[in-house]
Amino acid sequence: MINCYANKKILITGGLGFIGSNLARALLAYGAKITLVDSLIPVYGGNIFNIDDIKDKVTVNISDIRDQYAMTHLLKGVDFLFNLAGQTSHLDSMLDPKSDLEINAAAQLAILEVCRKVNPALKIIFASTRQLYGKPEYLPVDEAHPVRPVDVNGINKLAGEWYHILYNNVYGIRACALRLTNTYGPGMRVKDARQTFLGIWLRLLIEEKPIKVFGDGLQLRDFNYVDDCVSSLLLAGASENSNGKVYNLGSSEVIRLKDLAELLIDINGAGSCELVPFPAERKNIDIGDYYSNFDLISSDLGWRPKVGLNVGLENSLNYYRNNYKHYWVDSE
Amino acid sequence: MINCYANKKILITGGLGFIGSNLARALLAYGAKITLVDSLIPVYGGNIFNIDDIKDKVTVNISDIRDQYAMTHLLKGVDFLFNLAGQTSHLDSMLDPKSDLEINAAAQLAILEVCRKVNPALKIIFASTRQLYGKPEYLPVDEAHPVRPVDVNGINKLAGEWYHILYNNVYGIRACALRLTNTYGPGMRVKDARQTFLGIWLRLLIEEKPIKVFGDGLQLRDFNYVDDCVSSLLLAGASENSNGKVYNLGSSEVIRLKDLAELLIDINGAGSCELVPFPAERKNIDIGDYYSNFDLISSDLGWRPKVGLNVGLENSLNYYRNNYKHYWVDSE
Repeated sequence: MINCYANKKILITGGLGFIGSNLARALLAYGAKITLVDSLIPVYGGNIFNIDDIKDKVTVNISDIRDQYAMTHLLKGVDFLFNLAGQTSHLDSMLDPKSDLEINAAAQLAILEVCRKVNPALKIIFASTRQLYGKPEYLPVDEAHPVRPVDVNGINKLAGEWYHILYNNVYGIRACALRLTNTYGPGMRVKDARQTFLGIWLRLLIEEKPIKVFGDGLQLRDFNYVDDCVSSLLLAGASENSNGKVYNLGSSEVIRLKDLAELLIDINGAGSCELVPFPAERKNIDIGDYYSNFDLISSDLGWRPKVGLNVGLENSLNYYRNNYKHYWVDSE
Repeated sequence: MINCYANKKILITGGLGFIGSNLARALLAYGAKITLVDSLIPVYGGNIFNIDDIKDKVTVNISDIRDQYAMTHLLKGVDFLFNLAGQTSHLDSMLDPKSDLEINAAAQLAILEVCRKVNPALKIIFASTRQLYGKPEYLPVDEAHPVRPVDVNGINKLAGEWYHILYNNVYGIRACALRLTNTYGPGMRVKDARQTFLGIWLRLLIEEKPIKVFGDGLQLRDFNYVDDCVSSLLLAGASENSNGKVYNLGSSEVIRLKDLAELLIDINGAGSCELVPFPAERKNIDIGDYYSNFDLISSDLGWRPKVGLNVGLENSLNYYRNNYKHYWVDSE
């Protein structure tokens, strides 16, 4: 990748979150000038400790992406917008659908309108999700697979994604979307299952409690270590090929959830897991097996995941064992 | 159709609009107790004259579907909600995307939340649109065709539709959606092209001005006379087969726009049409040829259109020639 980021102005929404903070670290190495915007809403992914090692090298602006005046100011003169802020919890989207809509759809449309008015020359890389495919009709799921969201979050994320592609197509505001699968690694929310179930698994393991696997544990999933996810964002931002495109991320290392739990326990050298019935509210929105076909981003942008589960999970366990006090409080 | 509507409480959003008012007329004949809710926002479809002949037999409640307290009150105890209110103009959705999102997506989600809390036993029939298919990949377009909206309106209508199906699937709130194609007939907005281009064509013809056909006029379209659209809504409401389903409407009488203009002129006995280049803002969101496959609603609910273009257009012309002063002001 030619370094198109040197001395460029970068705005990362959700910048104190899991992926945003790792992306910032990578972009610093390219000499970019970075502003992180984050709402620090406690139930979402932002955590100031995520940038502890780079806090003197980036600008932090605490605000909500629903704050249109803040966003209008922040978007001026920006070369790249990595638009990662979102409400990610499927359950929360059912309990508070209005907030999910405001953040994942309405604020996205508002951001694009601001770009159209004050900065149409920027490039936007939007973090979307495989959740909007719903229950797969076939595997692996490619981008031609029908979209059929099974929860409010999926519908709103889809709207948010499509606004981006629409503004690319109609107004020429360069934008692309990456449909992330289960991303994991240092910096993810592990306090609970709001961001990914793998987070709470790590916490339980470190707390020496059994991992809870829903259902029969035979569900297939693919995972991306955060460094691989970051490299896809950087490649998508650097290329004009990506304009107007939607790409799946994914991994060819497909694993059953039960086996993943056992792998984690194995890497940890201790621990246990137990199968528990699906809670009713999760059963309704469960999608069964899922893994991605990511040929399109491989051929268009040359991306493929490089970090295997063994290495990625070990890195993650080590990170949280050393830093857990910044991610959860024992009494919570 | 067994009469499931006798003495039932019916709420029609967009009830002073084109389809809502015609639906109310049909439901009155079944002995239903009807409340019409309409915002009467001037650029939308509501027109108090649409119910001039039935105004003493229905309850009219002027309010915006974005008014959550009004909707909470109005939805209590309702047996059927015909949810027809919407922002329908593709151009307006690009000029004012926020209002389009509020009405076509956010208010729909809020209505469903109200139903979940105060009246989960009602049945909802939602008016969706073929606009969300975008530019067809194949013809006729069936419900398995990918959805690919080309404007903000299409994205928001899709979200609104899917919230309905989701609440059916997750919460058991019986809901279905009809994807309307070009509906026309007495009561449609003819002042301008905000609801359908056919509206402004009728006005121009009655005003003895040339009809303007965009592009080469070779675009294929299908049309439904409003009585046929109303019968589909009634059938969908009356059947449990429709729960959770999305149905195309459509017609097997497919016609090129140029030929439609000539047919209208022929029925009118006078007039002219001219081909004009697409305005830039319409070119961006034009979808080329479109017509529907409506086999699914035919087999599930026994619906098919009965009124041909000759009769439907003649009825429409007669209606507007007699009543035009209630639909436009000469100086506008």
